[in-house]
Amino acid sequence: MIFITRRERFNAAHKLYREDWSVEKNNDTFGKCANPNWHGHNYELFVTIKGGINPETGFVIDLKDLKKIIIANVIDPLDHKNINLDVDFMKGKLASTEILAVEIWNQLEQPIKQLGVALHRIKLFETENNYVEYFGA
Amino acid sequence: MIFITRRERFNAAHKLYREDWSVEKNNDTFGKCANPNWHGHNYELFVTIKGGINPETGFVIDLKDLKKIIIANVIDPLDHKNINLDVDFMKGKLASTEILAVEIWNQLEQPIKQLGVALHRIKLFETENNYVEYFGA
Amino acid sequence: MIFITRRERFNAAHKLYREDWSVEKNNDTFGKCANPNWHGHNYELFVTIKGGINPETGFVIDLKDLKKIIIANVIDPLDHKNINLDVDFMKGKLASTEILAVEIWNQLEQPIKQLGVALHRIKLFETENNYVEYFGA
Amino acid sequence: MIFITRRERFNAAHKLYREDWSVEKNNDTFGKCANPNWHGHNYELFVTIKGGINPETGFVIDLKDLKKIIIANVIDPLDHKNINLDVDFMKGKLASTEILAVEIWNQLEQPIKQLGVALHRIKLFETENNYVEYFGA
Amino acid sequence: MIFITRRERFNAAHKLYREDWSVEKNNDTFGKCANPNWHGHNYELFVTIKGGINPETGFVIDLKDLKKIIIANVIDPLDHKNINLDVDFMKGKLASTEILAVEIWNQLEQPIKQLGVALHRIKLFETENNYVEYFGA
Amino acid sequence: MIFITRRERFNAAHKLYREDWSVEKNNDTFGKCANPNWHGHNYELFVTIKGGINPETGFVIDLKDLKKIIIANVIDPLDHKNINLDVDFMKGKLASTEILAVEIWNQLEQPIKQLGVALHRIKLFETENNYVEYFGA
Repeated sequence: MIFITRRERFNAAHKLYREDWSVEKNNDTFGKCANPNWHGHNYELFVTIKGGINPETGFVIDLKDLKKIIIANVIDPLDHKNINLDVDFMKGKLASTEILAVEIWNQLEQPIKQLGVALHRIKLFETENNYVEYFGA
Repeated sequence: MIFITRRERFNAAHKLYREDWSVEKNNDTFGKCANPNWHGHNYELFVTIKGGINPETGFVIDLKDLKKIIIANVIDPLDHKNINLDVDFMKGKLASTEILAVEIWNQLEQPIKQLGVALHRIKLFETENNYVEYFGA
Repeated sequence: MIFITRRERFNAAHKLYREDWSVEKNNDTFGKCANPNWHGHNYELFVTIKGGINPETGFVIDLKDLKKIIIANVIDPLDHKNINLDVDFMKGKLASTEILAVEIWNQLEQPIKQLGVALHRIKLFETENNYVEYFGA
Repeated sequence: MIFITRRERFNAAHKLYREDWSVEKNNDTFGKCANPNWHGHNYELFVTIKGGINPETGFVIDLKDLKKIIIANVIDPLDHKNINLDVDFMKGKLASTEILAVEIWNQLEQPIKQLGVALHRIKLFETENNYVEYFGA
Repeated sequence: MIFITRRERFNAAHKLYREDWSVEKNNDTFGKCANPNWHGHNYELFVTIKGGINPETGFVIDLKDLKKIIIANVIDPLDHKNINLDVDFMKGKLASTEILAVEIWNQLEQPIKQLGVALHRIKLFETENNYVEYFGA
Repeated sequence: MIFITRRERFNAAHKLYREDWSVEKNNDTFGKCANPNWHGHNYELFVTIKGGINPETGFVIDLKDLKKIIIANVIDPLDHKNINLDVDFMKGKLASTEILAVEIWNQLEQPIKQLGVALHRIKLFETENNYVEYFGA
């Protein structure tokens, strides 16, 4: 068993805001992140796969295939987008880094399984000072 | 003459979009950056000062003073904000990295002069793949 | 279960030196790190929390609360200090990165528990070439 | 139990190519990495050790000893070399990052055991966009 | 006048070796870099442009155009290649970082001029410990 | 004319403190940096050389020679040392980053000249948030 990780990046806007709460409660809970006019980040995503080494190729997985899956399922829907407004798999959900990491896992788990390997970890940096890791439910 | 540089960071949303252009022309010119629902970045700002060394302190400038000036004039107005909507000194201007760097220079030039030193350079990273440098008009 | 990590940094002086050993034995064991006049580092600390996602906020923990706990219990006592002389929780202990990581864990475990989540890992970089990880006793 | 990690780096050439396959099959499988005239990388290697803290020294292991073992067994054989042609422990093996990480583990496991601690993880970056982790068989 | 910089990366093999010198003289002069079987690097290239800001777009230059020029003229010829054997514009030249930076300048100067702006600087990292800057003849 | 830069690093302790001032004045002027028991940093030093390319070797300078000069004149005297107490060329001087950069220039200018090239710039990072650049008197 060996682990291989691919990094991809995307830029997106979001806010942390609940429509069913008052402005005050949003500000108290989410601080500057509740700015109604949005703010944004350069997100950095690390996708880790686990599997055995294919003796024919020396690969766990062809990284070009993994890259295509990440681009199609995660980067294209998120890059230069508004996470709250533009992203189908985030509709109706709070745009926290935690929930975004879980939903990225949900987007990638099946397509990666179809390559014959298992998704092991999603690691998502919002800034260089904070990141989230998710290993599945 | 010696140069000293302070790094500060901010997160913000923006889009590259002209209201006086059609959607098509905006998309042709600005690509993904024209997304009407905004996107955003972790900006990294490097402010470089030039001056002589004060023999009393060994400093060109007290970095705590420089930090306060940058926070008050640049970071507070920009951090967790929408550059197009929330930032007075960017009102009516295109939110490109180039114009943002020039306007950050304009915010900092006078307050830094009042400390007895000169602003030398604004270096502004939008992502780890591109940055702008401005040395004044 | 999800993991969230906050980075903080501090600068400190230390030496690796046992008063009950000869100068020679200290030098043989600790090399350049035994310099009696101290040396120092920019330490980089990553604190990882594990917990469930609060469905009200989308957070495992409010990072502003976590930051306050780290600043009060770790950064304020260590930043711009001498680890051997100035830091109560390091008194009488060897100032190795290993022991420092364990003692940082001991400072943070209880205050973090009181937020309703669990401390998972302390990761402490002494330089970009070496770091220590501790997951508790 | 605590974990300590040492970073070392090396530059090397390689190609992903099987002599028993046609040029077409090599290109289909390995893409640009099959270039017959080689290409190369700045590899970044992180070696993680686990063990208890020696109460005499505050160390899990003397990092100078660990560094010597890594230099002698991994860096000297690999640095400024051709992985396919010059490296005894890679002879007859595909020069993928996965297999290289496993073989680096095999070089380091015994010498590290003789220091009284255990090798925990090999983490090997081929570029800043992909890395492999191996925890032993 | 403002400066904008784009980063691109490529992996390549090379050696520092003169066919008209003996093996000994090559080894004495170029050390480990003379390994006849090649070694390689992850090169990091920063291309800096200077120009005025186009008031229509807020851009000095469309970075998508700059990226295309760099990919076509520099990255495609160099990435996953052998600098000594595979690269037309390096034929018959020593594959030092200095000469490579100059030749990258020569590849980019004219295409960039045709966009109406001027190439200002080539900055080329061979490793994180050394880089070359060239501003033209 | 071309520029080549070598990075080296060192760890050191220092304080910003004038013995001819009161404790209060030191604290007012230098803040946390005046801690009498010292603090310290991982310094990162970039030394830039300018010169022509030697057509025999493709080099401005052999980086192994430059490295030796930097190690002998700057890193050995500073690494794992106390800048205020242990370093001859800093005796009687304030240990600010500015003055340290100037004195590093003074240590390197002549030995580099003897290699037939010119020292162009000293760039010295105290932390990732601040650095000083010096180009000579």
